[in-house]
Order: sequence, then structure tokens, then C-alpha cells
Amino acid sequence: MVITLKPGTTEKGIQHVIEKIKELGFTPHVSRGKERTIIGVIGENAIRTRHIFEAMFIVESVTPISKPFKLVSREFKGEDTVIKIKNVVIGGKKVVVMAGPCAVENREILLETARAVKEAGASILRGGAFKPRTSPYSFQGLGEEGLRYLAEVSKITGLPVVTEAMDPRQLEIVCLYADIIQIGARNMQNFDLLKEVGKTKKPVLLKRGMAATVKEFLMSAEYILSSGNYNVILCERGIRTFEDSTRFTLDLTSVALTQLFSHLPMIVDPSHGTGKRELVLPLSRAAIAAGADGLLIEVHPRPEEALSDGFQSLPFDNFAQLMGEIKEIAHAVGREV
Amino acid sequence: MVITLKPGTTEKGIQHVIEKIKELGFTPHVSRGKERTIIGVIGENAIRTRHIFEAMFIVESVTPISKPFKLVSREFKGEDTVIKIKNVVIGGKKVVVMAGPCAVENREILLETARAVKEAGASILRGGAFKPRTSPYSFQGLGEEGLRYLAEVSKITGLPVVTEAMDPRQLEIVCLYADIIQIGARNMQNFDLLKEVGKTKKPVLLKRGMAATVKEFLMSAEYILSSGNYNVILCERGIRTFEDSTRFTLDLTSVALTQLFSHLPMIVDPSHGTGKRELVLPLSRAAIAAGADGLLIEVHPRPEEALSDGFQSLPFDNFAQLMGEIKEIAHAVGREV
Amino acid sequence: MVITLKPGTTEKGIQHVIEKIKELGFTPHVSRGKERTIIGVIGENAIRTRHIFEAMFIVESVTPISKPFKLVSREFKGEDTVIKIKNVVIGGKKVVVMAGPCAVENREILLETARAVKEAGASILRGGAFKPRTSPYSFQGLGEEGLRYLAEVSKITGLPVVTEAMDPRQLEIVCLYADIIQIGARNMQNFDLLKEVGKTKKPVLLKRGMAATVKEFLMSAEYILSSGNYNVILCERGIRTFEDSTRFTLDLTSVALTQLFSHLPMIVDPSHGTGKRELVLPLSRAAIAAGADGLLIEVHPRPEEALSDGFQSLPFDNFAQLMGEIKEIAHAVGREV
Amino acid sequence: MVITLKPGTTEKGIQHVIEKIKELGFTPHVSRGKERTIIGVIGENAIRTRHIFEAMFIVESVTPISKPFKLVSREFKGEDTVIKIKNVVIGGKKVVVMAGPCAVENREILLETARAVKEAGASILRGGAFKPRTSPYSFQGLGEEGLRYLAEVSKITGLPVVTEAMDPRQLEIVCLYADIIQIGARNMQNFDLLKEVGKTKKPVLLKRGMAATVKEFLMSAEYILSSGNYNVILCERGIRTFEDSTRFTLDLTSVALTQLFSHLPMIVDPSHGTGKRELVLPLSRAAIAAGADGLLIEVHPRPEEALSDGFQSLPFDNFAQLMGEIKEIAHAVGREV
Repeated sequence: MVITLKPGTTEKGIQHVIEKIKELGFTPHVSRGKERTIIGVIGENAIRTRHIFEAMFIVESVTPISKPFKLVSREFKGEDTVIKIKNVVIGGKKVVVMAGPCAVENREILLETARAVKEAGASILRGGAFKPRTSPYSFQGLGEEGLRYLAEVSKITGLPVVTEAMDPRQLEIVCLYADIIQIGARNMQNFDLLKEVGKTKKPVLLKRGMAATVKEFLMSAEYILSSGNYNVILCERGIRTFEDSTRFTLDLTSVALTQLFSHLPMIVDPSHGTGKRELVLPLSRAAIAAGADGLLIEVHPRPEEALSDGFQSLPFDNFAQLMGEIKEIAHAVGREV
Repeated sequence: MVITLKPGTTEKGIQHVIEKIKELGFTPHVSRGKERTIIGVIGENAIRTRHIFEAMFIVESVTPISKPFKLVSREFKGEDTVIKIKNVVIGGKKVVVMAGPCAVENREILLETARAVKEAGASILRGGAFKPRTSPYSFQGLGEEGLRYLAEVSKITGLPVVTEAMDPRQLEIVCLYADIIQIGARNMQNFDLLKEVGKTKKPVLLKRGMAATVKEFLMSAEYILSSGNYNVILCERGIRTFEDSTRFTLDLTSVALTQLFSHLPMIVDPSHGTGKRELVLPLSRAAIAAGADGLLIEVHPRPEEALSDGFQSLPFDNFAQLMGEIKEIAHAVGREV
Repeated sequence: MVITLKPGTTEKGIQHVIEKIKELGFTPHVSRGKERTIIGVIGENAIRTRHIFEAMFIVESVTPISKPFKLVSREFKGEDTVIKIKNVVIGGKKVVVMAGPCAVENREILLETARAVKEAGASILRGGAFKPRTSPYSFQGLGEEGLRYLAEVSKITGLPVVTEAMDPRQLEIVCLYADIIQIGARNMQNFDLLKEVGKTKKPVLLKRGMAATVKEFLMSAEYILSSGNYNVILCERGIRTFEDSTRFTLDLTSVALTQLFSHLPMIVDPSHGTGKRELVLPLSRAAIAAGADGLLIEVHPRPEEALSDGFQSLPFDNFAQLMGEIKEIAHAVGREV
Repeated sequence: MVITLKPGTTEKGIQHVIEKIKELGFTPHVSRGKERTIIGVIGENAIRTRHIFEAMFIVESVTPISKPFKLVSREFKGEDTVIKIKNVVIGGKKVVVMAGPCAVENREILLETARAVKEAGASILRGGAFKPRTSPYSFQGLGEEGLRYLAEVSKITGLPVVTEAMDPRQLEIVCLYADIIQIGARNMQNFDLLKEVGKTKKPVLLKRGMAATVKEFLMSAEYILSSGNYNVILCERGIRTFEDSTRFTLDLTSVALTQLFSHLPMIVDPSHGTGKRELVLPLSRAAIAAGADGLLIEVHPRPEEALSDGFQSLPFDNFAQLMGEIKEIAHAVGREV
């Protein structure tokens, strides 16, 4: 349930409510808004104790949360979550584009790509150092060496960096070098990893699993929030269907659904979602039109030479064209790039 | 294969090529462009006879078609197909919106809805007289009575009419009253119906089957074109997936894929594709941004009273809002509404 | 709802109840069992009139049907439906195998195949005269010529014949030549065809659509029963999924589910369901073990020369092996072949 | 590629080949059969060095492996892999049943269940101590306490134990208490976990991901084998489809496909695969008939009181009936229980 406190409630009053919640064996989650403070109360049958809180003078209202996800739901928090990473704001008026190579291959290509995507208008640099590959014999990423290149290129260009962590044991080092920690689609229900990333305060980019419903996706986000980390960015990246002309089926309905259900920002990855370079532009436009807060795009100076996912990477000129096109769409929906 | 004739080839020359094609046991399909005439040659191993045509003076080039679909492919016809229905043009610069009730319930509701959607900017009136329903005990549509209402309301408002035919035996009467014949998703591989509708010259709105790949969808269009009717409008309406928050998963990638593969115009039905009223607006914007040539939208004066699909029908004010929003998106992609 | 009459109710009594049902605007469906007669009452809100029937002396009980399908449900009819076709019984203790070529290609191959499958223990001959093909340029079947071959070979071998009708206009002629009318997966929701086949009294083999849930499948069967034809045999033939090593995913759970929900017999088609010859044997064994009442198997004397679906057709020796293996499985589940 | 050595090759000869493989920069995987020793050579373009090995006197043949999976393929190892766990053999003539509660709830229920399933004929005890749950607010398992109960009950009953590890950091402790380590469906592509479990020598039960193709499933097994652990048991547990009457769609074709592609043993989990108690028996019969080497079954003394998955757990009497039924099926396919 959600307890909304009256405007002007003092810190002492807030602490009093929190103590009571703990005393009853539940977990409090505090969200301090501009006017009001609201407190989520998580625990089985918490709602049965609503009368205790309703009787408090400083409590304005107590409301149950009907959805299985609690802290991520609109019922818990009506206003959109906005996440700040250095000079970049995700979930605000500006549409944010994260771009870069699928995998970090070496320092030169990474720097060349970072400069090109920054020039074209991207705000965040992406690049994989730990790569989840279907085959054990495929290139598995440069590991820590890749992380160091990312940090160095970030420093040179000023672009914050997003990169994937696949294992709780990698978290410490990834947190050291990266600004946003990506949890990949294949790990969306790696619950121990979700709990661990929830204990850090780093922003998390959580990708939808290829067989996950929107509700399961939000339940995975709930793992992170309930562990104490509220900085979660959702990412649609395509689901498994019978269609065989594309690698996955990009589900843009999930963008609109998520905005109904949740206050968390959501971006779209049309590169993995389609697996075909020539589809990335139209689907990027469609994603922004559907209401996405940003895009995750694979860019490579020479896609035909990429060590992974070359088919879906954009060369620099295509990426610049994409930035131009989504600028128009962003304006059409009252946003900017 | 496709035979491209030199500019200025006379009608006599064209007939000479056609005769030769028939003589070899193949079927010619002639497309007269502004500058050049091209002739599709359909038949097994037709390509083996290419030398016969290459030797002709009036033949500019002979090219094989690599795709399983021939007449619907971009290789057969590079430029977009534009279909004219009375004063409406589908596949041109203008985005075309077809709107109206799911089922024709009575004359009054139909007229009220037609006037409202026309006022808001729709170009074509939709409404089902023959309704494919999962249950034999659900309302099956008004049949011919419904067709008469459609024709009458079309006359009053000037809006051309699109309505579904489910059975070859209904085709004659549907052709009598309607301007566009809809073939529903459940009949996308009703091959006898496709052949029959191919023998008429009426424009056809072919909906994608809920388990059909984009290639199978285009093969079904090929049935209609190869029967002699080139006026086919494709329609994405959602596919079956595991996602259970929506009725279907609207596949907007299919819009971009179809434009790569085919010259036929394509529209999107976000009403059936999502099954939820609150998702129709964002997905309509996304569809136009992805490159769709139009929309098919369910509108009802009082959705909560509709005999079918009330959950996904828009009331008039929502529809007017939709028209306003897609106008902005259309401009952003260089089109108009 | 279902009205169960007391044992020994006279024909006059039955007629009295039927009259009352019609008078109230509902449709009666009478099922005369060995001991009791039960009458299904179909119509919206029929259950609200239950008190009228409960007050009748000859009525033992009145029960609502909770499922959306009525006449096909176990609630309507508890005991298994058994269908007799000449000397063959479907839905009884004996597992029934229908076998033959995918398409009827000519008289000789058909006769050769029929003799071989009969010899191996098959009870019914299958073969397509009207073939639903994805491409308009593929072999479409021999049409009436194919039907004549089927009838002739049936006469020679004594095997009843099952063959597909794709269009209401073909029904008359298919009924003339065939013993069982097949409705293909692509026509499972061709509702006009279902209604028409429901007006004949011929046994119907209804194949599950590749995107149909089990409940939708049973609703399609309900169309046939509610039109007056109770002789429906269900057939699982694989659904569309993301798995790409097989043509479809054969869903054997549907066999067990259908037995819970419905009294209709159900067979399995592992040839289409897998699309690979080497998988037909293990999946045939599994189907019988799951409780299927029979199999539909594609057999061809020389699969590599077949005009359609050669990859999934069994040569004669493999088919004989299959018959031997399912005999063992049938015994293990208390049945016979 | 696979190098097959001549019968009678000495250990010195084997070492010579291994040295050469390492010298060329590839990884050798040795499999010592009764008659011949074969050595898999893993590495990009290894096949280009085949002439070096073909020239050796002790080498009988060198053959490429055409599949993306190498060590798990039939091409690498023709004969079935048999895995011994204490007194139990998996992959041999005997069909092996693993049974027990979904989650370990307390010592008493576990012991009661273990005794009952042993009595009925089960060979291995299953039970979750670390539970992957969609919601962070659901029961997450007893953790190490659960492992201790498993080990204790194993000692009392003599049944080896299988239980899940979700995180590399849990592996050490799980290995300490359990006989088989389960990798759950949600972790099938948790590649770091696969590599870690590959470094232990413990038998691994690898469950198919709910959106994984059979080929991807085998690639995940390849991760484990290529890390040095050859004791992998595959487990089909249902995939995500549109069907909504069951929790998942159990894909029994995967059993037959896996036997074509791989030498690894495969079992089936009809409890998770269907999610409905009344479907577990027929699908268990079907799994054994399809060729499965065993079953994984959820059993609970009072399913309606279970802390997780009560709907799909069998009470003791149902489980005993299941054992009786699959005994008959096992005999029908030349195996035993």
C-alpha cells in the first residue's frame, strides 16, 4: 500500500511513520516529492494494517496497489521518474540517444565511433566489454581492458558510458568504470544479479527478456527497486515470435503499455530488435512516436568488419540521418532531441 | 522474370512479346509505366528462356525475380503502387484514415459515426456487415441489410466504403455495395476466396493472418495479383505471441519490411492490433512514423454499448485527437493527412 | 444449459420439452443416450429460464455450461463421442490410422500407396485433391479428377477416404466422393465453410489452426455441431512458435486438454506437425501415449519424388515400422491398433 | 573437427596428438571409448590443419563437425552418453524419475515426500533451496538450510539429490550438498554460470530456456562441456507460445530432435511444462514414448498447501499411478523403470 503524508510533514513525522512500518514487520520505501512525501509499504497483507496509519494526523491517505509490481507502478508514484547521469537527463523532455559499437573491439574504433555519434547528437556511449554470446567459441569481449577503453573515451569525449554486467562478480569493476550498468535480455530473470545491482546506486538499463511479458519485465524492475535502487531505465529490444524475416519482433506496444503501468523511463533498441540495418531508421522513428524516452543504437565505422552484429550496425552517415529524422518526430510529439 | 521494354516501344511490339510468352506456356503480366512498359513472366523455369527475349530488339533487359513472390515484389515493379478509389488516393503522399464501427449495428449509429469521422478528417468509412466471430453464438453481423446501410451512408457522406467478404458466394453482393473489399486475417490463406477476389477489379484490403510471416502475407497478395487484380492494399493488424497484456502484438516492423520487399501500399489497424483503446493513439502515431500509408480505426459513438469490440473502439473525441496527432507525425515524415 | 430427462421419459415428453425451448426463443440440441436423454439449450441467458424446466416432472436436472463452447463440452455430454464410418470406428478402443499421400498425384501412386498402408494396418486412406498452397505457382491438386481416383481406390481397397474441402462450393462434390471431409488448418476459422459442413451429415476432420488456442479450436468445432453435424473428429497438427528446427511445434498437451474439455475424438498429424520424416515415428508413439484416438500420416512410395511435402512423407517400410511401434504403445495404454 | 585414433593407440601416442593440437593453438577434448579414442579439436579454422593429423600413422580419420555445437554433437560422439550418480544411471536402459517438492519447505515435508516417491519407484530426489521467483515478494527458498535438509534426507533415504544453483557464488555450497546441480530455464543463457558449472565435475541438469530453440539449448550445453564438464543432462520444460490454457507448451519434439543431434541424455519436466496437475500423467507417458531418458516431477503431500506451484504438484497417490503407467510405456519402447 501507499501512504501519502500531508504537505509540510516534518522529518520527525516521516521517521515516526517509518518506525511504525518496520515495527509491523514491513519494509518502507520513501519517495520525497516536491510537495508531498509518499511511503510505499511492502509486505504480505500490509493493507490489513491501513487503519493504523489512517488514524495518524499527518497521514493524508492510504491506498492499496492493485498490480503485482508495487514500487515500479504508477499507483505508487504518479509522476514520471527522471534519472540524471552527469549532464544527461533520461525521462525528461529530451529524447536521449545512446550509441556505439556492439562490442568494444579496440581503443581506436571506440574513440572514432564515440566522436562520430557525439557529433551527430548522441548523449551516451554504449559498448560491450563482457559479451553474452550464444556460442562459447564466439568473441566474448575484451573484459576489463574494454572497460578501461570505455572510461578513457568517456573522459575524452565527455559522453557517459553504458555497458553490460553479466555476473554479480563483475559488478564492482563495472561500477568503477561505467555510468550506467546494463542488464541484458538473457539475464532479465537472473534474480541474484538483479538484487546485487539493486544494492548499488548506479543507474541500471534493464533490457526486456525475449520471452518476457510486460508484466514480468516490470516485476524484474521491481527486484531492483525493492533492493533500494530506484534508478532503472527500461529497454524494449524485441521478443521471440514465429516471424523469420527479422531477428526478433520489436514490440512497440510495450512502450505505451509501460507508460500506463509505470513511472520508469523507457527506451528502445531497434538494432537488436530488428537485426537489419535498413529497418533501424523506420523503427527508431516509430519508437519515438510511440512515446519512447530514448534509443539504443549500434554504430560502427565499418559494419562489415565488426566482430559482432555487423548486420545491424549503422555506419556514421546512416546514424546522422537517423538523428535528423527522429528530431522531426520528437518535435511532432512535443519533445526534442 | 521481368522483361523491361525500351522507351517508345509500340503497342504492336508489346503484343508481339506477349504472344511469345504465351506461346512458351507462361503467363504475361503487363505493367504500363510512364516511360517504360514492363512485363512479368510467370511460370516454372521461365528464366531459362531469357535468351529468347534478350535477343529481341525492343527488349531493354531481362531480370530474374529472386523472391518467391513475383508480381508483388519491388523487383517486378520499382515504383510504389497508388490506388484510386473515387476521390481518395491510397499509397500517395497523403496518409489515408479508414474509420467507423467494428460492426454495422443500425443505420443511425452508422450515419452518426460516418459524419463524425468525416468531420475529423477520415477519408473512408469502415463497418462490418458479415462478421467473423470466434463463437457461433455471438452477433454475426446484419448481412445484406448492413451492406445497404453502408451504401446509403456512403451516398450521404461521400465517403467510400470498405467492408469484409468472408465467402466467395458473398463477393457479388459485397462488390455491389462496397468500394473496397476486405479479406480478414482469418481468411488470409483462404486461397479460393483470394482467387475469386482476384477476378474482380475491386480494390482489396488484405489483412495479415495472425500467424503469417511477412513473406506468407505477400504470397497471399500474390494470389490476388496473379488472378488479375493489382489493386491490393496490405494491412498489418497484429500477430499472435505470448504477450498477454494485449490482444495481439502489433508488428510495425512489417510495415518497413513490406516497403523493402513490395510496391503495394500498406496500412495499419491498431484497434485490433492492441485491443485496448488507450493504446490506439500511441500506436497510430508509431505506425505513421514507421511509414504506413494509412490507418484502419474502430470508432463508435458509445463504445461501451457496442455489439462487438467495444474495448478497442474510440469515442468521437479521442478519434479527433488521433487525427490531430497523426497530422503532426505525417508532416514529420514528409507526408500529410 | 443442459436439461437431463429422467430415465424412461417418453418421446412425447421429449417433444414437450423441445417445444417449450423453442417457444422461449432458444435452440434445442437433443442427445439420446442409452439410459437418459439430454437436451442442450442454446441461446443468450437461457439459464435464466431454468426454473421453468426444473418444475417439469420429467426433468431430472438442469445445469449451466460454464465453458464458452457448449455442445462440444464434457458438461453437455459426459461420454466419449464415437463416430462410425463404414466399418471403421473412431473414438473407440481401437486407435485409427489414416494414411496416404499428401496430394493425389495420379491413380497408380494412389493405388500403390493405399494397398501398402492397408497391408500395414491403416484403416482410412488420406489424399488431397484440392490443395491449399502458400504460393499460387505451386501444384494446386488434381481437383475432381483427384476425387475420382480416391473413390475408385477406396472401392478397390475397401478403405474409407478422407480429403479436404477448401470452399463451400466444393462441398457437394467432395461429399459425393469422400467419407470424411477435412477442414484444413488455414480454414479453421473460415466460419461460412464451418456452417456449410455443419449442414451436411458427413463426418468432419477439423484441423487446428496454426495460431489457434485449444479453446478457439473447440469454438470452431462448436460452429459445426451447432449447425447440426455432431460427427466431428479433431486433429492436432502443430502450432506456430519460434522454434526453427521443425516446421511447426506439435502440441501434444492439446490432446490431453481436449479430452478434459470435450467428448469429441481427437487424432494427431505428426507429418505436418514436425515436417521431418525422422521425427514422425517418435511423435506418433508420443501421441498415442498422450491419449490420441488416431493418427494422420503422410506416406509416399518414393518421397523424394512427391509433388508436395516429400520431406515429411514416410516410405512404405518406415510406415510399417510405425504401425508396429504404435501397436506396442496402444497396448500399454489399454487400447489396440 | 574430430580426430579418431586407431584401435590400440598407446597413451604416449594420444599425448603426442594432444601436444600437437595445443601447439597449433587449439583446444583438445579427449573421449576414451571402449575401442577407440577420439579427440575433438576446438578452435577457429581448426579444419584447415587436418592434413597435419591425417599424416600421422596412429590417426584413423579426421572429420569436420558441421553443426555450430561441437562437443555435444553426435558427430563428435556417436554413442549415447551415460551418467552415473551413486547407484543411479542416467541415459541407459532404465528410465529415471526425479521427484519431490517444488521448494524445500521444511524437513518433515521433505522426508515424507522423499519416502513416498522412493516407495513409488523414483530414483532421485528433487527440491529447490534457492528459488527463482518472478516476484521479489514471493517465497525465495530456504537457502543453505534447505540444502542441509536435502543432504540429510538423501542420507536417510539413499536417494541422490538434484537442486538448483542460480548464481556462481552459490556453486560451492550447492556442490557440497547436492549430487546434481540444476541450472534453471531462466539461467540457460547465464553464460558465466554455465562456465563455472563447467569447471566443476558435478553432473548438471540443464533446463531449456522458455524462448530457446533446440540449437541454442545445445549451444548452452556446449558452454558446459567446453569448460571441461561432460556430465550434462538436458531437460525439456516447456516453451512460451500463445496457448493460454497451459502455463507453457511442452515441446516433445525437442526430445526426438535432441537424440538426432546429440549424445547427451534428455529428461522431461511435465510439471512446469503444463502447469496443471491433470495433464502431468498423459504428458509423462508421451515423454517416455517419445524417447525421454527420464522425468522430473513435482510431488507434494498436500499440494493445496504448497508454498509454490501447488497447482502442478501431484499428491502421492497420483504419483504412484504415474509410475505404474510409465512402466507400461517404458516396456513398450524396450526400456524399463
